[in-house]
Amino acid sequence: MTDQRLPVRRALLSVSDKTDVVAFARQLADRNIELLSTGGTYRLLSDNGIPVTEVSQHTGFPEIMDGRVKTLHPKIHGGILGRRGQDDAVMAEHDIAPIDMVVVNLYPFRETILKEGCTLGEAVENIDIGGPTMVRSCAKNHAWTSIVVSHHDYNDIIAELDTCQGAVSDDFRYRLAVKAFEHTAGYDAAIATYLSQQIEDDGFPATWTTQYDKKQSMRYGENPHQKAAFYIDPHASEPSISTARQLQGKALSFNNVADTDAALECVKSFDVPACVIVKHANPCGVATSQTSLLDAYERAFATDSESAFGGIIAFNRSLDADTARAIVERQFVEVIIAPSISTEAQDIVAAKANVRLLECGEWSGTTLSGDVDFKRVKGGLLVQDLDQGMVEKEELVVVTERAPSDAELADLLFAWRVAKFVKSNAIVYASDQRTVGVGAGQMSRVNSARIAGIKAEHAGLEVKGSVMASDAFFPFRDGIDNAAAAGIKAVIQPGGSMRDQEVIDAANEAGIAMVFTGMRHFRH
Amino acid sequence: MTDQRLPVRRALLSVSDKTDVVAFARQLADRNIELLSTGGTYRLLSDNGIPVTEVSQHTGFPEIMDGRVKTLHPKIHGGILGRRGQDDAVMAEHDIAPIDMVVVNLYPFRETILKEGCTLGEAVENIDIGGPTMVRSCAKNHAWTSIVVSHHDYNDIIAELDTCQGAVSDDFRYRLAVKAFEHTAGYDAAIATYLSQQIEDDGFPATWTTQYDKKQSMRYGENPHQKAAFYIDPHASEPSISTARQLQGKALSFNNVADTDAALECVKSFDVPACVIVKHANPCGVATSQTSLLDAYERAFATDSESAFGGIIAFNRSLDADTARAIVERQFVEVIIAPSISTEAQDIVAAKANVRLLECGEWSGTTLSGDVDFKRVKGGLLVQDLDQGMVEKEELVVVTERAPSDAELADLLFAWRVAKFVKSNAIVYASDQRTVGVGAGQMSRVNSARIAGIKAEHAGLEVKGSVMASDAFFPFRDGIDNAAAAGIKAVIQPGGSMRDQEVIDAANEAGIAMVFTGMRHFRH
Repeated sequence: MTDQRLPVRRALLSVSDKTDVVAFARQLADRNIELLSTGGTYRLLSDNGIPVTEVSQHTGFPEIMDGRVKTLHPKIHGGILGRRGQDDAVMAEHDIAPIDMVVVNLYPFRETILKEGCTLGEAVENIDIGGPTMVRSCAKNHAWTSIVVSHHDYNDIIAELDTCQGAVSDDFRYRLAVKAFEHTAGYDAAIATYLSQQIEDDGFPATWTTQYDKKQSMRYGENPHQKAAFYIDPHASEPSISTARQLQGKALSFNNVADTDAALECVKSFDVPACVIVKHANPCGVATSQTSLLDAYERAFATDSESAFGGIIAFNRSLDADTARAIVERQFVEVIIAPSISTEAQDIVAAKANVRLLECGEWSGTTLSGDVDFKRVKGGLLVQDLDQGMVEKEELVVVTERAPSDAELADLLFAWRVAKFVKSNAIVYASDQRTVGVGAGQMSRVNSARIAGIKAEHAGLEVKGSVMASDAFFPFRDGIDNAAAAGIKAVIQPGGSMRDQEVIDAANEAGIAMVFTGMRHFRH
Repeated sequence: MTDQRLPVRRALLSVSDKTDVVAFARQLADRNIELLSTGGTYRLLSDNGIPVTEVSQHTGFPEIMDGRVKTLHPKIHGGILGRRGQDDAVMAEHDIAPIDMVVVNLYPFRETILKEGCTLGEAVENIDIGGPTMVRSCAKNHAWTSIVVSHHDYNDIIAELDTCQGAVSDDFRYRLAVKAFEHTAGYDAAIATYLSQQIEDDGFPATWTTQYDKKQSMRYGENPHQKAAFYIDPHASEPSISTARQLQGKALSFNNVADTDAALECVKSFDVPACVIVKHANPCGVATSQTSLLDAYERAFATDSESAFGGIIAFNRSLDADTARAIVERQFVEVIIAPSISTEAQDIVAAKANVRLLECGEWSGTTLSGDVDFKRVKGGLLVQDLDQGMVEKEELVVVTERAPSDAELADLLFAWRVAKFVKSNAIVYASDQRTVGVGAGQMSRVNSARIAGIKAEHAGLEVKGSVMASDAFFPFRDGIDNAAAAGIKAVIQPGGSMRDQEVIDAANEAGIAMVFTGMRHFRH
């Protein structure tokens, strides 16, 4: 790339988002740049006393069809696309004046279709044709021209013009061109998705096109020999690992991001103060407390202090000084995340400079917004709705002779919420609103139950009197028999096995109270 | 949508991919449709004796700048974008003839940049401006016009014209418009990605834009209350679950696809005949055989016959009759996948009509092509290279007093290949080229080792004399101490722990041979 600092002599402005455009146009005019414009932008600039020529006057061809055709003209596109030097003669011959800068942003199609009651006709009418064409022309010809698609770049453009004596450097123009094609790709993806969804029975478009912005380059991926980067949805608004602000500590690793996501999404499902500790994508300790966040942490930690070492800790309340102190004094921790972090807590965590401390903001209730989940397979992508299902107390069906007591019911619902976030097959033992044993990721359900028991024993916790949650039905009675032998008093599970009666009989024989949720929570 | 069957009187053709365009144009001309065309397409059609008008003659404006500006003209875009009825007067006033059909496909940018030695300048020169603009204009105005972006649609277009007496129905035009915007979105995504990669230090573009085609709508996702669809990469060529052909059985479920992917990718890593049985995203039984595929299956099944029930079975050789018979007679199986399926094997599996039988074709060697992996987090996406790392025998470092025997070494390498596909923390016990116990998905490594032992015991397999693979280093000596107590004779692991010496000491004390790979294989 040679550094071609050609002066900007003529710019075309046509923007849907008019933020700061008057000030920007004035700054361009002040630098002796001739301005061309269309429609609403033209009126706005001329009303503000900025010297500007209407495009139709420039082309000698009127704006027709309510603006559908205004800039689709050789004098505009020849002016943008002409290769300076090479095409000068033909430009002169056809009286095509070079256009060195195009300032265009597109009517927000995405916002249009999100408006209540938006019809297909309105959506289609809002598909911009002339705008993207100018954006693409100018981006293609970035060797000579500057394409500006966002008002966030106005200040930098002016600074660049002043640095380069009225020109824009190669590197700068190139970066603008990259943004421009990102802009048009995202725009057409939104249109294709919307149009396709109107005719697909399952609501999933024929082509899945997604666009994410790079937030962070990573040292490596899941393993050191894999390269990686972290991208975020530019439209994401709900507090999450993607929108969280890091207050201190080392850069987040690939595995940190994945585990923090699991911890945060799990802790969001509790209303009372709660703590979730995650290790290797699974909650290893979860507890709530009626008294304090510190109490929730202490109880979560005690569940599996072995695994909690080097874990990720998420809270659903502002991190206070006492809790922060207890963590940093007791254990090696990779990440702490909470809706907010008190100043005192920040000072305490500062003593451990490597600990990644994140603040994600308050989320609204426990309802999660509409969103999708992906699972990558070789050569393809599985797309599904997020698992937003959650049964309420009233929806549970008691299937055993004995109904759970109120305390058991509270623990069953707690364990069920945790089981949703444990990798399948998932078995969670819980008592007194904390996990006692977590059996994760097994290929047979009875093994998950065995593991939950082993982990409880290893942590010195009594299983006797605990409750058990299973993310899917028990295919055989052996899971219940083992649970009974371990002292489990109540069970929550979806039900729906061919052998449900056998499983219920096993529970009745052991005096276990069992409820069915009718809803499964596989998570792999 | 009203059904507006307006006759097609004029069509513009300008195609990069000229497949079948001559025959198609002739069929259009035969139906009294006036043809306009540009450049190479114009020459091809007129050379073949098809009546066609050059666009520059139609507009009265020459093609300039080596074709950069030829169709960007009000007579073209007014002709495409004019709303029939509403804009007739203005069209007449400016002598704009309606263009009812646009046949345009874009220069394959993706193929251009994949060519060896392609420079940035060549890539940029191949960014099409006029083509996408016509595609977008025509797709926007689909209420009256038909946009054709693929030669695969030519036959259907002719059939539609004949069915509708020279017109194209609303529904048909709408579907064409959807394809058109998918085409332009994918095109600009490829451009943005390429341009961005040139300047990003980590090789990951500033914006991640991906496009997948829907292959299958699904009854539900990971759970029945989640909607789902399966998308595939239109450019995927390596045999995979995404390219596989289903020969019989029920439709693949979301979990079937995910598990079959895990099974197939794992079995691909073996050169000799191998069988991998997967359940809940983890290999539960893996074996190779020097004698037959049947033997590999029998041995894989025996590892964990409890989990294998309802599992997914993948092979790396053509499925023969004996193996097919052994499976369907013995066990409930969800999916069987192999590079090919013998006719006899197909007939045998046909007895179980629900079993999903898939043929994926032969892959080339054990090398996996360059590709990326995603992991979805709330509000974002983690992107990383696929884990394509694999150590060879020569790269192993013996760290203990005793070196592994040849037989132990062969089993260590076998176990290591399996461990790569087991969810972390992963521990695999193996002997004689088959898994003996698989400890998956645990939050602490010592628990994974315990589980591997439990599973071996449960399957009635002797651990004594087996080898152990660990996907990451042992943080403490307890993992080795437990392994020694269980009778493990050799260990393969990455090494790299602060306490490596302690771990090596533990191995030496037990007479265990241990090798370090220097490479970790986390998989969550």
